[in-house]
Amino acid sequence: VEALRRAGLSDADAGVGADVLTTTDAWGVFTHGTKCLRGYLRRLKAGGLRAAGRPRLAAEGPAWGIVDGDSALGMVTSVLAMETAIAKARQCGVAYVGVRNSCHFGAAGYYAWLAARQGMIGLSMANDIPSVAAPGSRGGVTGSNPISYAIPAGRHPPLLLDMSIATVAGGKVYAARSRGERIPDTWLVGADGRPTTDPGGYPDVGALQPAAGHKGYGLAVMVEVLSGVMSGGGMLNEVGHWLFGPTSAPENLTQCMIAINVGSMMPMQQFKERVDRMISKIKNSPKAKGTERIYLPGEIEWERFAENQARGIDLPDDVRIKLKGMAEDLQMSVDGLYE
Amino acid sequence: VEALRRAGLSDADAGVGADVLTTTDAWGVFTHGTKCLRGYLRRLKAGGLRAAGRPRLAAEGPAWGIVDGDSALGMVTSVLAMETAIAKARQCGVAYVGVRNSCHFGAAGYYAWLAARQGMIGLSMANDIPSVAAPGSRGGVTGSNPISYAIPAGRHPPLLLDMSIATVAGGKVYAARSRGERIPDTWLVGADGRPTTDPGGYPDVGALQPAAGHKGYGLAVMVEVLSGVMSGGGMLNEVGHWLFGPTSAPENLTQCMIAINVGSMMPMQQFKERVDRMISKIKNSPKAKGTERIYLPGEIEWERFAENQARGIDLPDDVRIKLKGMAEDLQMSVDGLYE
Repeated sequence: VEALRRAGLSDADAGVGADVLTTTDAWGVFTHGTKCLRGYLRRLKAGGLRAAGRPRLAAEGPAWGIVDGDSALGMVTSVLAMETAIAKARQCGVAYVGVRNSCHFGAAGYYAWLAARQGMIGLSMANDIPSVAAPGSRGGVTGSNPISYAIPAGRHPPLLLDMSIATVAGGKVYAARSRGERIPDTWLVGADGRPTTDPGGYPDVGALQPAAGHKGYGLAVMVEVLSGVMSGGGMLNEVGHWLFGPTSAPENLTQCMIAINVGSMMPMQQFKERVDRMISKIKNSPKAKGTERIYLPGEIEWERFAENQARGIDLPDDVRIKLKGMAEDLQMSVDGLYE
Repeated sequence: VEALRRAGLSDADAGVGADVLTTTDAWGVFTHGTKCLRGYLRRLKAGGLRAAGRPRLAAEGPAWGIVDGDSALGMVTSVLAMETAIAKARQCGVAYVGVRNSCHFGAAGYYAWLAARQGMIGLSMANDIPSVAAPGSRGGVTGSNPISYAIPAGRHPPLLLDMSIATVAGGKVYAARSRGERIPDTWLVGADGRPTTDPGGYPDVGALQPAAGHKGYGLAVMVEVLSGVMSGGGMLNEVGHWLFGPTSAPENLTQCMIAINVGSMMPMQQFKERVDRMISKIKNSPKAKGTERIYLPGEIEWERFAENQARGIDLPDDVRIKLKGMAEDLQMSVDGLYE
């Protein structure tokens, strides 16, 4: 909160940004948590992210809206977008909100979860810089275009999926390279656009492969339309990189939020019982040899969340290093970070 | 049309069923076209499919509806459901319709395309008998749970994706077995629930693997909730097999339809230009070595469709055999089928 306030954000906006990032850390998704803060602050200083940006509802109808993010912190814009979708779904049952002129919003699943906290099904998607090949392309064509959902349950935590449409995250490629290992031929295409087992050239040459080939590609195109095309914002290579792009240029990213008010369609208690029954059926299915437990989407994250709420979050070294660098940039102290 | 009329369907219902199946054949998706007709007719005779079934809108709100299929032909129910979603989206911008007590509906993409024909984005999903493993399960837990979308374009045909959440269709496993070949270890789990390269036991033992592991599984759970849980119909192992199940028992399948009226959010001409621009960007991307062309979702199907409209559909032998058997069952002649 303090770092974002020093960058010029209002108390309210700083609180929103901090809640998204620390919740993400509490889920154990450290790639999209406070590790990103230093990059945001640099962009806030350079103007690519606008501390005084005011996201607004630029157009709307009974069950839809389009939010213009005004290059404000992506979390502030995206929370407004999902809250708009939730309010409209309360009236109509379902609502869609597209978002343009937005910025990196961290973990897509956070916004889906906002809906689940209010007893609704939430979906959240976003486009991103071209890092994933289309079948037959030489380089990246679509973004990793995350698709996430959250579904409220009864005695279980919400179902929560947050997936990229690529086979793996780029981080897995870097990790294999640093260990000197080959990679499966479904992860990457090389300089010639063909599958490779060599992690060496990425990301300078080559691109990630879409998950399950044409299926991941097909989902990427859907996200590009629901986020980029429909919001009137950037699509495919029209968006900029939130970390490696020019810090003074807008990111031009887009997102979309969908809320489904299940309570308007059946009694909420009945819905929760049905979700619990589905979960029990899945968990009680006969197990594969060597498997003790079948997990539901999000179950691992919620277990980490509960542990981290109780004991505090043990940040990994790469996150601590980033936060230390950020503290130096801002000349602020970060007590306890170096214990 | 004649076959369905002989089974007791009204002229209108028979026309709907025939249009879905022949359109699917015209796309070249022969697994889900008129090949299925014989199975439907047997179920119509035995009562599992109800010729006099009347699907009805059982509940509704401004942007949502729940259709009860009354075990009528799945095509009749699903067309009603998507038409309901389209009508509501015209008022509200977006609409969701869940479907319970439904039956096999053929190709999910047909219903998505109904929306695209009216200038809307359509999504269509369905659950199915448990044939796909969850990560760590021994056998099938979810269905192949198809996810489809159709998106209108300007000078291009609609984008059209219709994908199962399994790595491959069961038919690919049978084909490998009949050729005496091993299969990749991402297609199937064997009797112990672990990946296998032996196609021999399926479907009596083992199950298909979800596409991209936990990602396909996560999407399967989403479809199960949007179709099965929310409609109040069958979920997971509560649904019956449309072909191999008892012909007198209801299938208890569920579906869901979503329509997004893009024209209410931006001028339709602008939307189409933006989709065309996205398509051009993708198609003009640098190609991989050996690739001449990058395809958009549905492009191959639309090319086949145009050819088949011009020249007639050259049905493969397995479809002709099924239609011949159906003609014998009904003691009707099928002129030209044996040329």
